[in-house]
Order: sequence, then C-alpha cells, then structure tokens
Amino acid sequence: MKARVHITPKAGVLDPQGKAIQHALAALGFAGIDTVRQGKVIELDLADTDPGRARTRLDEMCRRLLANTVIEDYRIELPA
Amino acid sequence: MKARVHITPKAGVLDPQGKAIQHALAALGFAGIDTVRQGKVIELDLADTDPGRARTRLDEMCRRLLANTVIEDYRIELPA
Repeated sequence: MKARVHITPKAGVLDPQGKAIQHALAALGFAGIDTVRQGKVIELDLADTDPGRARTRLDEMCRRLLANTVIEDYRIELPA
Repeated sequence: MKARVHITPKAGVLDPQGKAIQHALAALGFAGIDTVRQGKVIELDLADTDPGRARTRLDEMCRRLLANTVIEDYRIELPA
C-alpha cells in the first residue's frame, strides 16, 4: 500500500527555506506572492493491507522519527 | 489563493534521504517497508484569483526555480 506523509512547519515557526524561496521568486519577477512555506513529503510503500493498521503504524513512525512534533505538523494520506 | 507544489525525485533517480529514512525505520523495528522516497512540498499564498492564470504562473515558477526538472517531477495542486 502506498502512503504519503506531509510534514510542514507549524504556524508561527520560522521557515527560512520558505522565506528564501519567496525572495528568490520576487527577484525573478513573480509578484503577488504573500507567504511561502516549505515542508517535506515522504512516500512509503508498505506491506500492510489494512488501512487502519497502516495509519496507526504511520502515526507512530511520524512521532518517533519522521516529524519533529515540537515544530512540525504531519498529515497522513492513504489511498481511498 | 493557496496553492501547493509537490516536488519528488523522478523514478530511477537515487534518493539518499529516502534510503536513510528507510534504514532508520527498519532500525526502529518497523518492518515491511519496501521503498521510501522523500520530496518537498511548497505552499504558496498567491494574490491571483483566476485558477488558470495561477496554474500557468506556478508552472513557470517550478520550471525556473522550484524544481530541477532533470531529476525531479512536480505537481501543482490548486483548491478545487
């Protein structure tokens, strides 16, 4: 089963990568861009076939390794 | 208008970050993970109100700055 985990900086946490992208886009002449935030997306191919169990395991993976929950939010996306 | 750009390594391109995550998950005892790929997600807040124009601009941003199209694929996600 293919799963996707989105990890984004929490609101209020500084995002220097996002700021750098915003300035670079402005320097290239792209106007009207208010905010830019950069996050990560991790695509995993799991042996699990049960979506419920896969979500539980992914949640544990996020809390233990993939996301820094002090400064990052995560969102798990499983095929419908 | 909020938009999201997903940038992932093309199939066949080595992804050392993904491999590192895969090994770290295995070391933590998470079994049955076949492949892991890591990509980026960029969230932009645009002044554009026309989705067609926003998509055209985002496509140009991806080609000129956000993605390295030699080794990366990008996907633009706009609110429905």
